[in-house]
Amino acid sequence: MNPGIDHTLRGGWTLEGGKLPAHALRWLRTRTGLSEHPTPVAPDSVLVVPEPELGEAARADLVAVVGEEHVLLDRTARLGRAGGLSYVDLLRHRGCGQLAVPDAVVLPADPDEVLAVLKACAEHNVGVVPFGGGTSVVGGVSALRGDKPAVIALDLVRLNRLVSVDPVSRLAVLQAGVRAPEAERLLAAHGFTLGHFPQSFERATIGGFAATRSAGQASSGYGRFEDMVEGLRLATPVGELKLGVAPATAAGPGLKDLVVGSEGAFGVISEVTLRVRRAPTHRRYEGVFLDGWDRGHEAVRDLAQQRVLADVTRLSDAEETEISLALTGGLKSQALTGYLRARRVTDPCLLILGWEANSAAELAARRAATLRVLRAHKPVRLGKVLGEAWRHGRYNGPRQRDALLDAGVCVETLETATHWSQLSTLRSAVRGALLRSLPGAVVMCHVSHAYETGASLYFTVLVPRAAEDPIGQWQTAKSAACRAIAPLGTISHHHAVGTDHAPYLPGEVGELGVRVIESVKRELDPTGVLNPGKLLPVPPKG
Amino acid sequence: MNPGIDHTLRGGWTLEGGKLPAHALRWLRTRTGLSEHPTPVAPDSVLVVPEPELGEAARADLVAVVGEEHVLLDRTARLGRAGGLSYVDLLRHRGCGQLAVPDAVVLPADPDEVLAVLKACAEHNVGVVPFGGGTSVVGGVSALRGDKPAVIALDLVRLNRLVSVDPVSRLAVLQAGVRAPEAERLLAAHGFTLGHFPQSFERATIGGFAATRSAGQASSGYGRFEDMVEGLRLATPVGELKLGVAPATAAGPGLKDLVVGSEGAFGVISEVTLRVRRAPTHRRYEGVFLDGWDRGHEAVRDLAQQRVLADVTRLSDAEETEISLALTGGLKSQALTGYLRARRVTDPCLLILGWEANSAAELAARRAATLRVLRAHKPVRLGKVLGEAWRHGRYNGPRQRDALLDAGVCVETLETATHWSQLSTLRSAVRGALLRSLPGAVVMCHVSHAYETGASLYFTVLVPRAAEDPIGQWQTAKSAACRAIAPLGTISHHHAVGTDHAPYLPGEVGELGVRVIESVKRELDPTGVLNPGKLLPVPPKG
Repeated sequence: MNPGIDHTLRGGWTLEGGKLPAHALRWLRTRTGLSEHPTPVAPDSVLVVPEPELGEAARADLVAVVGEEHVLLDRTARLGRAGGLSYVDLLRHRGCGQLAVPDAVVLPADPDEVLAVLKACAEHNVGVVPFGGGTSVVGGVSALRGDKPAVIALDLVRLNRLVSVDPVSRLAVLQAGVRAPEAERLLAAHGFTLGHFPQSFERATIGGFAATRSAGQASSGYGRFEDMVEGLRLATPVGELKLGVAPATAAGPGLKDLVVGSEGAFGVISEVTLRVRRAPTHRRYEGVFLDGWDRGHEAVRDLAQQRVLADVTRLSDAEETEISLALTGGLKSQALTGYLRARRVTDPCLLILGWEANSAAELAARRAATLRVLRAHKPVRLGKVLGEAWRHGRYNGPRQRDALLDAGVCVETLETATHWSQLSTLRSAVRGALLRSLPGAVVMCHVSHAYETGASLYFTVLVPRAAEDPIGQWQTAKSAACRAIAPLGTISHHHAVGTDHAPYLPGEVGELGVRVIESVKRELDPTGVLNPGKLLPVPPKG
Repeated sequence: MNPGIDHTLRGGWTLEGGKLPAHALRWLRTRTGLSEHPTPVAPDSVLVVPEPELGEAARADLVAVVGEEHVLLDRTARLGRAGGLSYVDLLRHRGCGQLAVPDAVVLPADPDEVLAVLKACAEHNVGVVPFGGGTSVVGGVSALRGDKPAVIALDLVRLNRLVSVDPVSRLAVLQAGVRAPEAERLLAAHGFTLGHFPQSFERATIGGFAATRSAGQASSGYGRFEDMVEGLRLATPVGELKLGVAPATAAGPGLKDLVVGSEGAFGVISEVTLRVRRAPTHRRYEGVFLDGWDRGHEAVRDLAQQRVLADVTRLSDAEETEISLALTGGLKSQALTGYLRARRVTDPCLLILGWEANSAAELAARRAATLRVLRAHKPVRLGKVLGEAWRHGRYNGPRQRDALLDAGVCVETLETATHWSQLSTLRSAVRGALLRSLPGAVVMCHVSHAYETGASLYFTVLVPRAAEDPIGQWQTAKSAACRAIAPLGTISHHHAVGTDHAPYLPGEVGELGVRVIESVKRELDPTGVLNPGKLLPVPPKG
């Protein structure tokens, strides 16, 4: 069996992560009234997993394509692809609510086998959930059946190759199942980097990044994932769509951008051609404090509009600044507070700035350009300590979340983006909606993706988990947040639509926009087997 | 009557432009064997214009929408919208071949009237050609009927407003019919610029830029037009599609990019929300010589990949360098040649670099970054003279072309883009195809849009016009060039598809890509009235 296949994948980072430090737990008890109600991951044996419903004819045809050993019907393999990493998904793996478990896990070897699997599934009317790293936090990989009698998880883990590198054009062709760390390792051998570092980095895949319009922590420098996508291959039940012959084109409507973000509803992305950059030889990460949200977000706006953003530019609001310092406990926050007060910073907002470059001169020039613009916003610079601390902990969020769940905390994130003139209004609206829905909650916010015309907002919520209906507790709050977002910003800046945001898609792109998506889906997926219930809330009319 | 409506618009820039200078004409005679066969624009009276076929019921409904004075049936108005500005279109206005003349010109006042006009046309089965500046060089505004009994030109000239400016977010909402110089004038009043300066600048419109994926001469600094489009309104026969709530989104497939480049086949773009920038206060344009095509394009690649491109970066090959200096005659080329030879530049390629900034410090820093990287490519810098000369003549191409047509020259341009590793192969292939098809022709080439992964190639062809079948002479050569391009690059980097490139679209996006476009068209334009014969070579099956 292929050694790359992780058959134990399930329920987040829990098994790898540690416990929450005692001081953090104390802080949570004081701040949120948390009492001790641990909710560990449930053992497999207590989870309800129905018998697989995949018909024998369908199974036989799938076996004919990928081989017997790559059609998995066992409980562990199926549980490992039962949903993603949303708080609700994690709760389900902890024994709350009902898991949606695929009837089988199918592991094609290459783009041609993906095509053949889709044809077989269309023929047998079997639903297909494309599965990469399984890190969706919006229900994008839930094994929903829709109106189909059975559904498979199409796991792309065997599509794990760097197909080719064009060092002159700085392009790399990667198969969809390559995980981000492996992609970086493969590219590093050629001196290149992708520069895509979302919080899901350790598990997420190239295909998943493309299918969901991922944006990494260094998006200010390297761009969103869609900016890196130069071409791709999309397997559909009616054939393969292959796009991307040039760095830019005026050859009609943008089909590449239509496939990016299609979340498995139009087909399965099997291969992606990506712009790469020379791996940086020089790095510098710094922490800066700005006084208050208004000054903070105006500083980031100024950097964006003068086009001198650092590659990583991340502004925490005062709540997030306070709490992340308290939770990590890595700093003598008393001393820091005194230092900042002496500099008349009463409402400190932490701004992380990170530059990556290929020479000391380049780094110095770019850093100087950023800091020159920043000066007008009265930054209190703290040197490299906080920057490096952030960099080393940049992927810890999911682990911390699992540890918080263990301790009985309801913890989840949500995000949006809007234009600068609406940013503070949107932040207040979402905060208000969350706090009304979850009294006593901690609501933190940061800007981690800035553009000339606007920015993203990323919220983290912490509140003691309700003993009764914990799923309902969060879903009520999330709905309130979405209703606050809808009139002011996008329903998702980089988490995608999945199931959770599907009800809000018509509000964002209009009734006619949904009809356009449906028309494309009908053309590429005429029997509607692809990722049922995602993106579009109901299957399109035939 | 609305004073903004240009009823004399027809046949290019000829009436405004002058004659070709005597030295240029002499050079052409020597270089191409041109003899004197002038072909002036034909007077209206000799052009065959059929009687309008618009039915009375359709006319009445259109009048009900826009008013009697905005449904024009007169010969001059119709001739003014009979095609764009391709060489073949210009020949037709000079009495060669047959013009496709719309049956009427309809001038709606605003986005709602555009919607109502489309509904009326769908109801009466009347074709609709959206008409902005009329600068298409690929047949995009030809008044083709397709299978419709009549066709109107939907002229957007009355949609000429700056609707709103958001100075904080740096966004401007412009109606589709605003011409580029007027857009710049309106924005300058708020201290902003769009930064979109294609050669069609003087006539082309905001809506046209979006519909065709235009790219301006300063695209390295300001981006392609599609990069500026933050949102838009698309009027279709089945309603309005309104997109763009945030600077970036993961809310599903990229519908905005699907509308951009749809060339009037999905609907009529009536309004565009655009990212704007502060109008520059400091500018510097310079000329630099590099020795030979290889060193030249490698230098541009290095600038692009190290992300220090000047806002305008334009590299002419040796042929274009020689000829543009000879044709403009603005330089003592003998002295220049001696100067370059002394510096061991045997095959000079002119690189124009232009920076635009908001302070002397910004200009100096960005210029230093460009020049530092350029140094490795042994540039011979010539200071500001050639840079400023280029800047002042930047929109002269179309006028020179009309003057060349007057003098009996077959002159046309075509363009493509590909990845860096293919760029020289593609250039040679296109040059070869053109020279085989047009023996003795002058074929010049430049790179004017560079990206990290590749660049555009822009070709200009000059050859004495054939006395017999001059349209066929060019079309044969153009087909040969397209066949050379198809396996190596995109069929268009910024001229769009129109009629001329439609046969090559399936080769570029595949059979399945065409089906996707057709499925969207069927949804938005179920009766197929929108821009018949453009983008898709044949109407999609119902």
